[in-house]
Amino acid sequence: MDVVTISTKSKTYPMYIGSGIIDQLPQLIKDTCKTVSNILVISDETVAQRYLEQVMVLLKTDFKNSYSFVIPAGEAAKSFEMYYQCQTFALSRGLDRSSLILALGGGVVGDLAGFVAATFMRGIPFIQLPTTLLAHDSAVGGKVAINHDLGKNMIGAFHQPNAVLYEIDFMKTLPLKELRSGFAEVIKHGLIGDREFYHWLIREVKTLSDLNKEKLQYAVLKGVSVKAKVVSEDEQEKGLRAILNFGHTLGHAIEAELGYGEITHGDAIAIGMIYALRLSEEIFNFDLSSSSIAASFKRFGFPVTVPQELPPEKLLQRMKMDKKATSGKVKMILLKDIGKAVIKDVDDKQLLLLLEKSYEKA
Amino acid sequence: MDVVTISTKSKTYPMYIGSGIIDQLPQLIKDTCKTVSNILVISDETVAQRYLEQVMVLLKTDFKNSYSFVIPAGEAAKSFEMYYQCQTFALSRGLDRSSLILALGGGVVGDLAGFVAATFMRGIPFIQLPTTLLAHDSAVGGKVAINHDLGKNMIGAFHQPNAVLYEIDFMKTLPLKELRSGFAEVIKHGLIGDREFYHWLIREVKTLSDLNKEKLQYAVLKGVSVKAKVVSEDEQEKGLRAILNFGHTLGHAIEAELGYGEITHGDAIAIGMIYALRLSEEIFNFDLSSSSIAASFKRFGFPVTVPQELPPEKLLQRMKMDKKATSGKVKMILLKDIGKAVIKDVDDKQLLLLLEKSYEKA
Repeated sequence: MDVVTISTKSKTYPMYIGSGIIDQLPQLIKDTCKTVSNILVISDETVAQRYLEQVMVLLKTDFKNSYSFVIPAGEAAKSFEMYYQCQTFALSRGLDRSSLILALGGGVVGDLAGFVAATFMRGIPFIQLPTTLLAHDSAVGGKVAINHDLGKNMIGAFHQPNAVLYEIDFMKTLPLKELRSGFAEVIKHGLIGDREFYHWLIREVKTLSDLNKEKLQYAVLKGVSVKAKVVSEDEQEKGLRAILNFGHTLGHAIEAELGYGEITHGDAIAIGMIYALRLSEEIFNFDLSSSSIAASFKRFGFPVTVPQELPPEKLLQRMKMDKKATSGKVKMILLKDIGKAVIKDVDDKQLLLLLEKSYEKA
Repeated sequence: MDVVTISTKSKTYPMYIGSGIIDQLPQLIKDTCKTVSNILVISDETVAQRYLEQVMVLLKTDFKNSYSFVIPAGEAAKSFEMYYQCQTFALSRGLDRSSLILALGGGVVGDLAGFVAATFMRGIPFIQLPTTLLAHDSAVGGKVAINHDLGKNMIGAFHQPNAVLYEIDFMKTLPLKELRSGFAEVIKHGLIGDREFYHWLIREVKTLSDLNKEKLQYAVLKGVSVKAKVVSEDEQEKGLRAILNFGHTLGHAIEAELGYGEITHGDAIAIGMIYALRLSEEIFNFDLSSSSIAASFKRFGFPVTVPQELPPEKLLQRMKMDKKATSGKVKMILLKDIGKAVIKDVDDKQLLLLLEKSYEKA
C-alpha cells in the first residue's frame, strides 16, 4: 500500500492507494474523523450494484447509523435537483454536524457528494472512495461542485476530504473507455509536473492493457504526487493550481458544445492537451515533439483532433467562459518543456487560428 | 466613524460603523478587494426602492460593470429557487472569479448573497451593506446560508466578507418592529459577553425611541465587539462560537413551528433568552434576576412567553433538530452570570418541564 499526504492550508490528509485495502475503511474513519454520529454513503447506480453492499456491511459493525443514497449514473446527476435531493435525504435521516459523508464512485459522485458535505449545515467531513481511474485526480484537492445550465462546475466550493482511499481492485470492473478517460489525467500529471514519470508512462504503457495492478498503482501514485505538490502550494487556485487545467480549456469547451456525456472527459482533454502543446510550440518557438505525443495518444485510443461538427468560433466562445478567464481574456496552460507548465493570456485571434488547424484533414 | 476589526482564521476584515459613510463605498472596495472585474449588488424589493439607486450611482463612476439583482423581501427568498436565480443572473452577466458581490439589505439578503458568493465558481469576494439592526449581527462572522424545507439555514457555508459597511442612516427608515427585532441581538451580546454593556443598555435605553444615532452607533459597536471576539477564537463553531446561539435554540423552534415570518427573529429569541435564563437559574441554582430581565424585555415590547398555540412537545422536537444537537441531545447555551455564557447538554425531560411553565398563565 502507498500513502500520499496532501497538505493544504485548510487541511492535511492521507490518500491510501492499494489492492484489497477497502477492508481498512472502518479503521480509516476512526483514525481520520472525530466522533461520527451517522454516515451517509452517496453512490451511483452502476457503482452501487457492484460495491455498495460490501461497503455497507463493512460499516454496519462499527457504525450502526449508516445510510446510503444512490444517484443515477452519469454527469446529469451533478444537478441542482440531485443536490437538493441529497440534502433532503441527509436531513430526513437525522444527519448532524458530527456526521460523515462517504463518496463511493467516480468524479460525478465525488463532486456532488463533496459539495453536499461542504454545505450541509455549513460543512461536514467527507471521505473519498474513488472507483474510477479518472477519480484518482478529482478525489484529491478539495474541488467539489455541481453543474449549472450555463456551465460545468460553476457552483461549488473548496472542501478537502478527511481522507481518500483508492482501492485498486475497484478498477477491475472499469470499462476500457473509462480507464482511458482516467489515463488522460495521469498523462497530464506527467506532462505538467514530472518529466521522468511521463517518459516512464510512454515506455512502460504501450497500450492500456499494459496497466496491470502494479503499473496502475505506480501511475496513480506518481500522478497524485504531482497534484499533491501543486495543491499544497495553492489550494484555492489563486495562481499555480491553474496548471492542473492543462488541456482543459479546450477540453471543457468540447464537452460542453457536444453536450455532456457525448465524449468522455479524458478524450476531450486529450484533444485539449495536443492543442495546448501545439500552441506552446507556436508561442515559445520550442519543439515539444507534439506530433510524437499525438501518435502515442492515438495508440492509447485517444482522439487528437477536434470533432468536425464543432465550429471553431463556438469553441472559442466557450473557452472565454472558462472559470480561469478574467475580463473575457482566455488564460491558457502551456508547456515550456515536458514537466514544466506555465499560465499565459492568449489572444482570441491566435487561439482561433490554431483551432482552425486542429480538425482532421479530409 | 468606528471601526471593528474581525480577525478569523480564514480572513481579517474591517467593519465600519457610522453615519453618512455610504459614500466611502467605492474607496472601501478599492481598499479591500483586488482587481474587480464586475460587481453584482443583491438587494430586496423594500431596500432596493430606498437605497439601490444611490448605491448604483456611487458604483458606476469607478466600476462600469455593475449590475443589480432584486429578490422579493422576506425570509421566503432564502430558498433554493432564489439561490439558483442569483447564480443564473451572475453567470449570464459574465461575472467571473474576479467579480464582487455586494449584499445590500438585511439578514436574508446577506445570507443568500453570501452563500451565492461562497459557491459561485467555488467562491468570490463579497461585502456586506446591512440595512437593518438585526443585520449588524448576521453581517459579521461569515455564516451564510439558505433554508431547506426541513430547517432554517441548513444549507450554507462559512464565507467571510471582505468588509462590512454599517451605515447608521439606513436605520432611519426601519420600522419599529424591525428595530426591536435587531435590538434582541444587541441585548444578547451584552448578556453573553459584556456585563457592563448590558447594564449600559438597560440604563440608557428605556424604550426603543431612546435609540438615537449616537446610542445606536455605540450599541452596534459594543455588540459587534462581543461577536468579533467570539468569532476570532472559533470561526467555524467547533466550540465557543455556539454561545452566540443564546436564546436561539427555542427561538428557532418557535419561528419554525409558527411558520417563518409569523414572528420576528428578535421576538422569538427574546422568548428563547428568557427561557434560557430560567433554565440557567434552575441548573446552576443561581439568581440571574430573570424576572427583572423579563420586565425590561416587556418594556421594549418583546414577548416573553411561548405562544399558546405551540405544543411544548412539538417545540422540543424542533429543538432536537437544532444544528448544535449531536446524536439527538439538545445543547443549550446557558448563563453562569450576566456576561458569562456556557454550553451544556440538557435532558429532554428538564427542557420539557420548563417549557410547560413558559406559557402565559390564563
